[in-house]
Amino acid sequence: MRRFERDSTQLVAELVAVVGAEHLLHKPEDTIVYESDGTAERGIPTVVVLPDSAEQVEAVVRVARRHGLPIVPRGAGTGLSGGAVPDSGGVLIGTARMRRLLELDVRNQFAIVEPGMVNAELSALVARHNLFYAPDPSSQKACTIGGNVAENSGGPHCLMYGMTTNHILGLEIVTVDGERMWIGGANPDPVGYDLVGAIVGSEGTLALVTKIMVRLLPKPPATRTILAIFPTMDAACDAVSAIVSAGIVPAAMEMMDAVTTSAVEAAVHAGYPLDAGGILLVELDGTATTLAAQAASIEAVCRNHQVREVRVADRQEERDRLWAGRKGALGALGRLAPNYFIQDGVVPRTKLREVLQRVQEIGERYGLVVANVFHAGDGNLHPNILFDARTPGIRDWVRQAGAEILRVCVEAGGSITGEHGVGVDKQDYLAWMFTPVEIDVMRELKAAFDPQGILNPGKIFPGAKGCGEIQGVDRRLALAAMV
Amino acid sequence: MRRFERDSTQLVAELVAVVGAEHLLHKPEDTIVYESDGTAERGIPTVVVLPDSAEQVEAVVRVARRHGLPIVPRGAGTGLSGGAVPDSGGVLIGTARMRRLLELDVRNQFAIVEPGMVNAELSALVARHNLFYAPDPSSQKACTIGGNVAENSGGPHCLMYGMTTNHILGLEIVTVDGERMWIGGANPDPVGYDLVGAIVGSEGTLALVTKIMVRLLPKPPATRTILAIFPTMDAACDAVSAIVSAGIVPAAMEMMDAVTTSAVEAAVHAGYPLDAGGILLVELDGTATTLAAQAASIEAVCRNHQVREVRVADRQEERDRLWAGRKGALGALGRLAPNYFIQDGVVPRTKLREVLQRVQEIGERYGLVVANVFHAGDGNLHPNILFDARTPGIRDWVRQAGAEILRVCVEAGGSITGEHGVGVDKQDYLAWMFTPVEIDVMRELKAAFDPQGILNPGKIFPGAKGCGEIQGVDRRLALAAMV
Repeated sequence: MRRFERDSTQLVAELVAVVGAEHLLHKPEDTIVYESDGTAERGIPTVVVLPDSAEQVEAVVRVARRHGLPIVPRGAGTGLSGGAVPDSGGVLIGTARMRRLLELDVRNQFAIVEPGMVNAELSALVARHNLFYAPDPSSQKACTIGGNVAENSGGPHCLMYGMTTNHILGLEIVTVDGERMWIGGANPDPVGYDLVGAIVGSEGTLALVTKIMVRLLPKPPATRTILAIFPTMDAACDAVSAIVSAGIVPAAMEMMDAVTTSAVEAAVHAGYPLDAGGILLVELDGTATTLAAQAASIEAVCRNHQVREVRVADRQEERDRLWAGRKGALGALGRLAPNYFIQDGVVPRTKLREVLQRVQEIGERYGLVVANVFHAGDGNLHPNILFDARTPGIRDWVRQAGAEILRVCVEAGGSITGEHGVGVDKQDYLAWMFTPVEIDVMRELKAAFDPQGILNPGKIFPGAKGCGEIQGVDRRLALAAMV
Repeated sequence: MRRFERDSTQLVAELVAVVGAEHLLHKPEDTIVYESDGTAERGIPTVVVLPDSAEQVEAVVRVARRHGLPIVPRGAGTGLSGGAVPDSGGVLIGTARMRRLLELDVRNQFAIVEPGMVNAELSALVARHNLFYAPDPSSQKACTIGGNVAENSGGPHCLMYGMTTNHILGLEIVTVDGERMWIGGANPDPVGYDLVGAIVGSEGTLALVTKIMVRLLPKPPATRTILAIFPTMDAACDAVSAIVSAGIVPAAMEMMDAVTTSAVEAAVHAGYPLDAGGILLVELDGTATTLAAQAASIEAVCRNHQVREVRVADRQEERDRLWAGRKGALGALGRLAPNYFIQDGVVPRTKLREVLQRVQEIGERYGLVVANVFHAGDGNLHPNILFDARTPGIRDWVRQAGAEILRVCVEAGGSITGEHGVGVDKQDYLAWMFTPVEIDVMRELKAAFDPQGILNPGKIFPGAKGCGEIQGVDRRLALAAMV
């Protein structure tokens, strides 16, 4: 607020004229609600506006531009890289009121939604037409499609169906100049440049998204869930490679290690054996006959990899029971420590075994327990570093361990983020993957859309904030509060 | 050549130092070979270089930059929008010598190839590992992966597997500044901006591609081909909609009208009835059991839509026989007229029937025969306008009819190109799909990569060439020579 007090009256008046007084927040007790997301990153917006339409977003952008203020878009605030945190202040545009289904074309299998629509709500709305929206982040009951577009979110079922970017057909955007336009559409080949592809995953730094045309898929005629219990993580990892090599593409293939399993079992009573080394959860989508054939192949592969037990479920309630442990895993970790830091890295599937061993070694070296629960099928690791935030100096320690884990991912030919984005959390690791010239190409792309750096400043690019070492420690540390 | 004669000695010497004298062409009798692609567009390059490596491409770009010359990349020259035509002269970089398979990772299912690798050759090279490269343009025996990347090429099997952009994991590019870098890679989520997505389909206007990391897929365990013969195109179109609505995603779903069928039958003797109104060719990939279930559903749908006959083939030779007519269709059109103009537009699948009726009406109004053979499953029309180039004024007439057809596509909610790109052929239609502000956003993207407009100038953007009306007529007309 500080640097803004002077002319707030004028700004507030102009924004109230756009969205109405009840949809503008500028008192400290109101704006503080918007200070963070799923990370420990903090920043108080100068003002929060909750527009009701694309036209209002357009008008808000023009007002913000006139006042020379940064613009930060925000969905549900469930992000895990600080992307929605207004750490340079400015106008925060919340999409909470823009959550309508604007169009549903059942025959051509697409929908147009506003960015504030909650992910799970979309699938619920189209279910009676036997359709669904495929990307399913773990936060899908809260996170918004707009936020998913910003972060190119993944989810368990992205193994078969692809990330968010594979399901976005077109976008209505508002540029930093306040120009509103449609890009992309239902056609398979973008005409000219693939602007939709460039915007998806750009973390709100290139344009604001006001409408989203999403691809809907017919619900698979049948689904089967397989839970396979392995004596070791090594055996479970080898089974993952072997399943993929057999040419089977499961809808999802999730893994949990022993630490996670023990917490989950205590919390959810999913019936997992406490001495399992690794648990693999495989879901198959298809026709009943395909599923039978694929399930038989998967069982055979598991048996070749020391599987101890295989449980199979077809009916919804049985499948829900097998999934309960996986879905409750993050919550259950609270039984082991008051805080955890979710890391998000990617490794080639064939290196899962080796990288997980190294993650384990890093944890031991730092004296930190690491609980792994992740999307094994696409090599997207989520090592959760457990800690107690009250321990002096622990945040820095956890941060260092997390950085070492990402380093191992990159050295294995992987990546510093699988689905959570760079945000403010991973800017300093960008240089592990890109040369300065490569980062410059991205900066040029940014400048093409937003030459003055007004849209979500301080995100993605290293040194964007010019913050010191001490700040650097804090802002990289996610302190997910336990429920 | 004209405006360049003056300092050609110096330029040639510098380029010879890079690629060797035998890989540089500058005599008119040599450069004229590179004057066109699959369209009627013409342009003589100042000089043609055939580099052998990415390092040589980098050096060639630096030489061209020093001499202030445009740079035009070229694969096999099979393009259908003039994208590889050096219509502003300059340095044409041919990829004919860069056709190596550099890396094959069977376990992680990717390959790294040079841009000059022929599309069909890649699938042949990886076949013994039970893998294949999915995008299959009709020109796949000649066209290159690099050209496919430039145009974001499609093909019959893109219905199930997606366009080229869905199969490109990473690219090594050389920027206009002569900087070489890798973008993207095997990880599912691009870190930072999705530069790979922006480059694919950019028609050589943003950067030169020197290495391509492609996704390979396991060959489906079984394939079944179904040929369905309908009394009318209307019935065939309705069947396409009904198949998709039934939740079946065939690997390919191709359609031919009566005009095409009659030409094909005379040329290929595929056994098509000459009084068929529309022929639908559906291919299914999957396990034997899935195929049986899907084929039964498709047959049932066809019977609900007046199908006259359904032929089914599982064995390779039988399948080849059913495909022979489709694959020989364009060649066979030569029996009906000495020239044809392939149009490439997209319509929502549910509007196929209505749009094809309007295409028919346009043909009748212009007194031109239109033969339709196209990717029905994704609504990608290819109306082929038949004509005799010796008829005075015919080119303008054909061009106008082609433009009207695209106009109908756009009005139906479709697009001016499904897989052939904009190139020089469709620049003037861009304004039917985009507002000036939208085109400006694309121009800004172009400027971010290539501020001086050196890479493949005169492509994509309207008015890029500043050519007059008369030139406009010629350059938009594809005169595919008959074999």
